[in-house]
Amino acid sequence: MIFEFNMPVNLMFGNGVIKKNSEKFKLGKKALIVTGRNSARLSGAFDDISDVLFASGIEYVLFDKIVSNPNLAIVAEGTKFAKENNVDFIIAVGGGSPLDAAKAIAALYTNDIESIDLILKKLEKPSLPIIAVPTTSGTGSEVTQYSVLTIPSMKTKKSFASPWSFPKVAFADPRYTYSLPNGITIDTAFDAFSHLLESYYSKRSTLFNDVIAIEGIEAFAQCMENLKDNEITKTTREKLMYASCLGGITISHTGTTLIHAMGYSLTYFRKFSHGRANAMIMAEYMKFNEASVPEKTKKVLNLLGFSGFDEVEDYFGFGNDKIPVLSDEECKMFATLAMGQGSVKLNPRLVEEDDIYNLYRKIFGGS
Amino acid sequence: MIFEFNMPVNLMFGNGVIKKNSEKFKLGKKALIVTGRNSARLSGAFDDISDVLFASGIEYVLFDKIVSNPNLAIVAEGTKFAKENNVDFIIAVGGGSPLDAAKAIAALYTNDIESIDLILKKLEKPSLPIIAVPTTSGTGSEVTQYSVLTIPSMKTKKSFASPWSFPKVAFADPRYTYSLPNGITIDTAFDAFSHLLESYYSKRSTLFNDVIAIEGIEAFAQCMENLKDNEITKTTREKLMYASCLGGITISHTGTTLIHAMGYSLTYFRKFSHGRANAMIMAEYMKFNEASVPEKTKKVLNLLGFSGFDEVEDYFGFGNDKIPVLSDEECKMFATLAMGQGSVKLNPRLVEEDDIYNLYRKIFGGS
Repeated sequence: MIFEFNMPVNLMFGNGVIKKNSEKFKLGKKALIVTGRNSARLSGAFDDISDVLFASGIEYVLFDKIVSNPNLAIVAEGTKFAKENNVDFIIAVGGGSPLDAAKAIAALYTNDIESIDLILKKLEKPSLPIIAVPTTSGTGSEVTQYSVLTIPSMKTKKSFASPWSFPKVAFADPRYTYSLPNGITIDTAFDAFSHLLESYYSKRSTLFNDVIAIEGIEAFAQCMENLKDNEITKTTREKLMYASCLGGITISHTGTTLIHAMGYSLTYFRKFSHGRANAMIMAEYMKFNEASVPEKTKKVLNLLGFSGFDEVEDYFGFGNDKIPVLSDEECKMFATLAMGQGSVKLNPRLVEEDDIYNLYRKIFGGS
Repeated sequence: MIFEFNMPVNLMFGNGVIKKNSEKFKLGKKALIVTGRNSARLSGAFDDISDVLFASGIEYVLFDKIVSNPNLAIVAEGTKFAKENNVDFIIAVGGGSPLDAAKAIAALYTNDIESIDLILKKLEKPSLPIIAVPTTSGTGSEVTQYSVLTIPSMKTKKSFASPWSFPKVAFADPRYTYSLPNGITIDTAFDAFSHLLESYYSKRSTLFNDVIAIEGIEAFAQCMENLKDNEITKTTREKLMYASCLGGITISHTGTTLIHAMGYSLTYFRKFSHGRANAMIMAEYMKFNEASVPEKTKKVLNLLGFSGFDEVEDYFGFGNDKIPVLSDEECKMFATLAMGQGSVKLNPRLVEEDDIYNLYRKIFGGS
């Protein structure tokens, strides 16, 4: 048994954690709040944060221009704004996009590099400290060292990872997801499940990481009926946030595998949400890997309450009436792009570009 | 569901982790190695560490005077030695005693206070960074913020805890326990189990902490037969170290409860090892708390393979033919001392001094 456990994020989970732990905001004198146009305010997170900052005498400036799948231009703009305002720490509020963008801004602020170098080079200096406040339950970014950015020049999403990109503190308050539309709740829940599944399957998986993955999969399983019935209770939202945090902890140790590598093109070219893109690949992924991880596959099917892969496909397809049809050329291009993702190497079964092409054909090749 | 997870220690677990991760030793230019007279050398840890330091060009000085249950005098002496040698980080090697002493020295080095103030005051400055290398599987100190010191003026052991006392890196290599005599292996394994049990029972226990505690209890359960048969295989030693690390992670979140509070006097006055002291209290502790945590009690009995508390008492008494007899006066004094431990407040069932007195009478009162 060999494993590493490294989770330097102080995770505060539960209703009301921000106001109960205001002292943890004292990471500097002036914060940059990085968020999207609406979610921070709608969720109630922004009010809690600004109350706490006001009471602590901490100034802040707001950068609320982050949209889904943030690209290099927006993080460069955020960094410029942060420098103009001489901030000394960052509070990231929102789904994966603001959290990932904040990690990029925090790194660009202290490292004198171009934004593309986040992907191409190794960082040399510690980032600005980050407090992460998720308002969705999917990304797990609040407890990871990863930042996924859209790189138009590479026609895909790429991630960078640095030990300095772990947030110092994460406040995971399920109440901030109460205002989330059910569609986004489902999409992001599928992303969280994908993290847990891919980490559990990963070549880098370890005994201890598996314990956390299984706990997360169990939590997700308890939410499945609610998600499908489109009746998402507060208890379910709490469990989803728990599953999402555990998913983040697991992938921070193992990375993702083939699902994420294959899903990115469906988001980049076909505009599917990240979670939905992953969901469409789920069943074939499990089938493809079954021979390499038979016991784990059995265990996951069992925890989800399924007797076979058809039920996996059915479940993760609910609410999605627009499975895309990809041309042979697209399947080839997507396969080439997926092979360029490092996560492919961590797939439990050895993957060749042809395998990925065949998987795309099988799922999206039309009849 | 409300919980905090905070485990800032980078834990490297498994055979050979030190040599495979030598870059993690680069925390400074000159290390103080804190250890006991023999264990670092016998275990093989010292050789691995000195090789890695030599290859990295890191100097070190050795302070190998730590004995069991270190007191304030020895940590003061270690601090003086560290200052004379201008070290900038500490490598702690051994059982709980060197690890806990190292945390005290690391704090005294940077905070200008008397050693007793470790217990009485709040630290104001970060400690020297610590690398922890356990050579027993019991304390879990390699992944906690706690340091337990013997305080002669208070006639007991007391702990201090600081977020700055978490080691930066812990190298848990089961091979370093191969040379450990079976008696110490058993004693320390009982300490590890005690951490897992007390954390699982603690008022501060949380859903996520319980997952880790249960995993640790399962690992311990797999070692029980081997321990009792006095045939301790390498696989068992690996599982014990795993259980011990998980025990440390759990108590770093919850603290201990009544067993530790009651056990200290058996060590201080009657010279029982810490683990054996805890073991003698185990069964009555579970019985005392059963009504407050019935489901958890059932689960623990089940995981250990026991149908009742008599079997718990039998098991944790094996190899111990000298259950002490305490006078009524001793029971009273020990109860008063135990009530002075903060951990009593975290016991699942409300504890009065009389309860503790009665427990001591029941276990040690003679016939």
